[in-house]
Amino acid sequence: MKAGEDEGGPVCWKGSEVKPAGGSLLSRLSATVSAPGWSKVSCPCCMSERVEPLVMVQLRADVGPETKRWLLRLIGASQKDGGAGLLAHPGEDATGDIIVVSAPRCTLLRATEELGLCKTYQNGEMEAFSYNDRDNFKDSENMEEFLTLAERQYMVKYELDGLRAQRDLRIPGLPDSCTLHKRDNICESSKQEAHELVNHLLLGQSSSVYSVNRYFGSSVAFYFSFLDFYTWSLLPPALLGLLITYFSASVQKEVVESVSGSQGSGDQDDSGPGVSGHMLQAVFSMLWSTVFMELWKRRSASLSYRWGTLHLAERFAEPRPGFHGDLGVNPVTGRVEPLFPEWQRDLRMAVVSVPVVGLFLGLVVFGMTGFYWGEALAQQLTEDWGSLLSQTLLFLPSILHIVYTNMLATAYRKVAQFLTEFENHREESAFQNHLTAKVLVFTFFNYFAVLFHIAFFKQDVPLLRKRLSSLLIITQLINQVTEVVIPFLVDRFISAPHRTEREDDPQEDKFRNQGKLPPFPGLFGEYIELLVQFGYLSLFSCVFPLTAVLLLLNNLTEIRSDAYKICKLFRKPFCPPVANMGVWQIAFEVLSFVSVVSNCWLLLLSPQLQRMGEEGGMSGTNLLLAAVLVEHVLIFIKIIMSVLIPDEPDWIRKKREHIEYSSMQALRQQVRLASTLSFHLHPASFFL
Amino acid sequence: MKAGEDEGGPVCWKGSEVKPAGGSLLSRLSATVSAPGWSKVSCPCCMSERVEPLVMVQLRADVGPETKRWLLRLIGASQKDGGAGLLAHPGEDATGDIIVVSAPRCTLLRATEELGLCKTYQNGEMEAFSYNDRDNFKDSENMEEFLTLAERQYMVKYELDGLRAQRDLRIPGLPDSCTLHKRDNICESSKQEAHELVNHLLLGQSSSVYSVNRYFGSSVAFYFSFLDFYTWSLLPPALLGLLITYFSASVQKEVVESVSGSQGSGDQDDSGPGVSGHMLQAVFSMLWSTVFMELWKRRSASLSYRWGTLHLAERFAEPRPGFHGDLGVNPVTGRVEPLFPEWQRDLRMAVVSVPVVGLFLGLVVFGMTGFYWGEALAQQLTEDWGSLLSQTLLFLPSILHIVYTNMLATAYRKVAQFLTEFENHREESAFQNHLTAKVLVFTFFNYFAVLFHIAFFKQDVPLLRKRLSSLLIITQLINQVTEVVIPFLVDRFISAPHRTEREDDPQEDKFRNQGKLPPFPGLFGEYIELLVQFGYLSLFSCVFPLTAVLLLLNNLTEIRSDAYKICKLFRKPFCPPVANMGVWQIAFEVLSFVSVVSNCWLLLLSPQLQRMGEEGGMSGTNLLLAAVLVEHVLIFIKIIMSVLIPDEPDWIRKKREHIEYSSMQALRQQVRLASTLSFHLHPASFFL
Repeated sequence: MKAGEDEGGPVCWKGSEVKPAGGSLLSRLSATVSAPGWSKVSCPCCMSERVEPLVMVQLRADVGPETKRWLLRLIGASQKDGGAGLLAHPGEDATGDIIVVSAPRCTLLRATEELGLCKTYQNGEMEAFSYNDRDNFKDSENMEEFLTLAERQYMVKYELDGLRAQRDLRIPGLPDSCTLHKRDNICESSKQEAHELVNHLLLGQSSSVYSVNRYFGSSVAFYFSFLDFYTWSLLPPALLGLLITYFSASVQKEVVESVSGSQGSGDQDDSGPGVSGHMLQAVFSMLWSTVFMELWKRRSASLSYRWGTLHLAERFAEPRPGFHGDLGVNPVTGRVEPLFPEWQRDLRMAVVSVPVVGLFLGLVVFGMTGFYWGEALAQQLTEDWGSLLSQTLLFLPSILHIVYTNMLATAYRKVAQFLTEFENHREESAFQNHLTAKVLVFTFFNYFAVLFHIAFFKQDVPLLRKRLSSLLIITQLINQVTEVVIPFLVDRFISAPHRTEREDDPQEDKFRNQGKLPPFPGLFGEYIELLVQFGYLSLFSCVFPLTAVLLLLNNLTEIRSDAYKICKLFRKPFCPPVANMGVWQIAFEVLSFVSVVSNCWLLLLSPQLQRMGEEGGMSGTNLLLAAVLVEHVLIFIKIIMSVLIPDEPDWIRKKREHIEYSSMQALRQQVRLASTLSFHLHPASFFL
Repeated sequence: MKAGEDEGGPVCWKGSEVKPAGGSLLSRLSATVSAPGWSKVSCPCCMSERVEPLVMVQLRADVGPETKRWLLRLIGASQKDGGAGLLAHPGEDATGDIIVVSAPRCTLLRATEELGLCKTYQNGEMEAFSYNDRDNFKDSENMEEFLTLAERQYMVKYELDGLRAQRDLRIPGLPDSCTLHKRDNICESSKQEAHELVNHLLLGQSSSVYSVNRYFGSSVAFYFSFLDFYTWSLLPPALLGLLITYFSASVQKEVVESVSGSQGSGDQDDSGPGVSGHMLQAVFSMLWSTVFMELWKRRSASLSYRWGTLHLAERFAEPRPGFHGDLGVNPVTGRVEPLFPEWQRDLRMAVVSVPVVGLFLGLVVFGMTGFYWGEALAQQLTEDWGSLLSQTLLFLPSILHIVYTNMLATAYRKVAQFLTEFENHREESAFQNHLTAKVLVFTFFNYFAVLFHIAFFKQDVPLLRKRLSSLLIITQLINQVTEVVIPFLVDRFISAPHRTEREDDPQEDKFRNQGKLPPFPGLFGEYIELLVQFGYLSLFSCVFPLTAVLLLLNNLTEIRSDAYKICKLFRKPFCPPVANMGVWQIAFEVLSFVSVVSNCWLLLLSPQLQRMGEEGGMSGTNLLLAAVLVEHVLIFIKIIMSVLIPDEPDWIRKKREHIEYSSMQALRQQVRLASTLSFHLHPASFFL
């Protein structure tokens, strides 16, 4: 049956047969499809011989054919009529549970403009794309050249997310309780009210690691570029660490030989490098981290220029699907859309989010205190009783602490998600940044609470060194195993046998197979791993100079294992175009400044320095004063360096200013006739 | 004779008689002028019955009539023909040494667009002015309503500065060595090569303090707004200071009474407030300074919106007159103009400016060391000899130090000017900011070196308190006297008798009288006074709690005396439109962070805290640790506060985003046809 022909709704959609196009993926897809093909495009310029399937929508098993027809019609309807302006295909079997979606040229071009992407102009420069001026942009006829696959797929998702009910409306085939209200988001609403009615699955195509941006989109590409940049930046501290370890080892040997046991080795049990090596390492790593972050910012700006994401217009685009508020005129764009006052969001953050996050951080500290208390108690009991049974008691606090921490982390993730939804951010990037920041603070605190406790309260440098080296080696091993080996084994021996895949499979089956892979868990885990590494390196590097060497080795394998994982083991994610690493960049920068405090403190604690101070006749107070002075000077130098090194290369600055100048000129040349419907927001505040 | 008619140059200028307009200032001016009036406007829309004289150009006495005619013609010629597009008037006497300049409507409107000023649109909002869309802007027919007097006068100066030789050219009436080369700046060149041939003087009109922006322009208005805001912000710390002084006085009295002399007063000679008052004052003033600066930024943003300077386009306008470089195509605007590579400027700053400034700072320290050494020597000699002659020796070091410091400061100002010229900044604001920053660092260092020496090296809190209170009282008195009383007396009794001014004087004579006033020395002196005040208050406030009270009293008179001074005692300055206080804002912010370090240190030094620590059984090291901890926490709180308080009010953000959105939309709607002549700068770096 031909979908949609049986119901002449207000949405002017017509089912149509697809024209078979030779040699394309589609030809295979359409060859297996019986009668109903792609929905028809309304605009003549989008007529194409070849339709590229981009996104597969997986319906729930109990969604009836009536609802599916309604959805097909909605997706295919033009945007003026409240549709998504996309191309829909009911799949191999018209009554099956999938919809395959593609996008016509005009919808893609308009979305490119709306997202604010820059594309190559005819003169070879990157310019903000303009739909009116589309013929002057390179490759604007051929969408597969003009946009990356990741961009095309994200745009389909963007348009699907943008589907909003034009007026109150019943979904056919679902109970009456599922009525949609005006401007309710259809996909979002269905998800929440109709129990995951719509679930996007992704197409997968085999891809090489080199074209990450084209295939996965800029957020994944930024992660890999950062990982690459970071790994190579580790070379200088790694070399220095090796040198210091080598020389301090030979110096110590000499000292031991010259003293020839007269002093006894009790004094030398602190097997760290000499104090000058310590200091050199610490000062170097403090300055290195600033240079590294500044250079990364410059690189990030060039990448973002090259990927056309330097001038994203997310602020001016439609709000994210989950955003809600009273309908009103957006004072910036003049469009009717939900509005939510800024002060109310701030209030929610101040009154709800901050205290709840603080509570959870308190619970981490509580857990740690409990653990220490429990350990002391167990020790005591073991000593008192001395039996074998009480020996096992020694493990109880650790086990309880691990269970407690894991439960807390799981609960916190849900709470953070809920809080961020509650804060009701307008832009997807703001939502992601706030969510990431919440989880980040907690996770980081969780990881480092023990180390900070050892460093600042117990003030026990040898213990810190032991703990740090074991953490570095063990967590990295565990990470590699849990991240790659286990998913690989699961994929190979448990999932794969159920997925029979052949070269000549129809495209649709490939999508279905990809859809069976577990969803991509996001880049949070990858980034937090790097951040924690960076924390070990910058916060405590002077304690264990080989940190950088270990991290360098780890990262060299990490690049490959991450690439394997993201390409093979998970479903392909939708990645919105982004201009930088967002909140992660800030986290790395903050860490780089905190590291000055921690390194100066650790240097002060080091027994060698204490001894040297005593020998040199410096009192503890003077030593402390000197450390504080050094700390302030280093922070001052770091601030100066980060101000002096520009955040974008000179050529990028010129190009950015050129784009700004062009848009200023355009505004000047334009005589606004329709400007009377502009906004009147605070006529009173005008004379404040 | 009619200027310009005797010479038909390539510049199409025609001398013309001015039409008398009833009742205007001009009528009086033109009534006294014999034959030649204002130059003729080329464009019909600028024909006006009334020409407002705006700027008087004072020529050197030996400039011949031929050169004057050439200048008149140049000023009056249209911009296409290399002229300034202004209206010129040879003054009362055609062979006299002045030229009166006005501007036609079109030139003013084009300059408004070029400078990027925002003006009131027909819907009541501020919008970036566009010449094409001029009819939709309010009051765009009446220049005296549309632009402020300060803006009109600045625009005349801007156009005069923009006069550049179209091709190599001899100035008539001057020796051949004064040939101008292509695109040489005419006014600038004449100044340097023809010994101040052109010297702009300003018209003055009496004005009330309230319309500072309309009359003086935004930079002066920003100063007065800041002074006003700052003065009222001093109320809370002043009140707190009074309370603390009152209560600690009564507490001390009680303590003294209860102890009733048993302890002796030797312990109590440090007459500062109690330690809790100290701390309260310090913590309050540290947090207060951040809140104050953040609120000022918000206020500054509103003012800048109201004055239409939120979107200045200085980067895209013509470079400043002193700027030189090889002719080339500006990659941002596509115009032909002198270019100077960024890296070369950075190199000059790093290799020349920074070391020279460092050298001068070193000379300050050298002077201070010399002074202390000399004082010790004089003391010694006086003790050894004991004669009356050697008594006078005691004053010698102070006198020498004062002379040395003054010579150093004078030399430094010249060096700073030279260095900043040498750095060759493209924009006037960049030039001013770099010059100000250089002088600022030196002056501040000069003022505070002694106080820092006492606080951090001598660690003598009572001496610091004495020095601070005397500085506060004496320097303020001296400032008031030198700034106002002396110029007033000079003006009244020395200059005024030579200036006979009557109500019915012709306008030209009024200009001439104004021209005899000394030139306005700029706002540097005013700002540095506030900054030094702010330094006393924030850096050392915990030592002398009445600082804020004294400053409040001083500033209340300062507002009035500054207003009197700038209105009456100096020639009116040209003020470019500015969007904020520039480098001064940064200086205040930096000071507010440095104050945390200094206050924590001073608290630690205070004898009461030391005594309290001893009584409480805290060692010096632990006390120091506590102080460092408090310092870090306070800095952290200040950073958080300055991040959390947005730099612009919500309504300004919306309006700014609206302007950005409009220009983005305009760019999109425009089909660029002439874009092929766009720039090709780094085709290789495109794939970096």
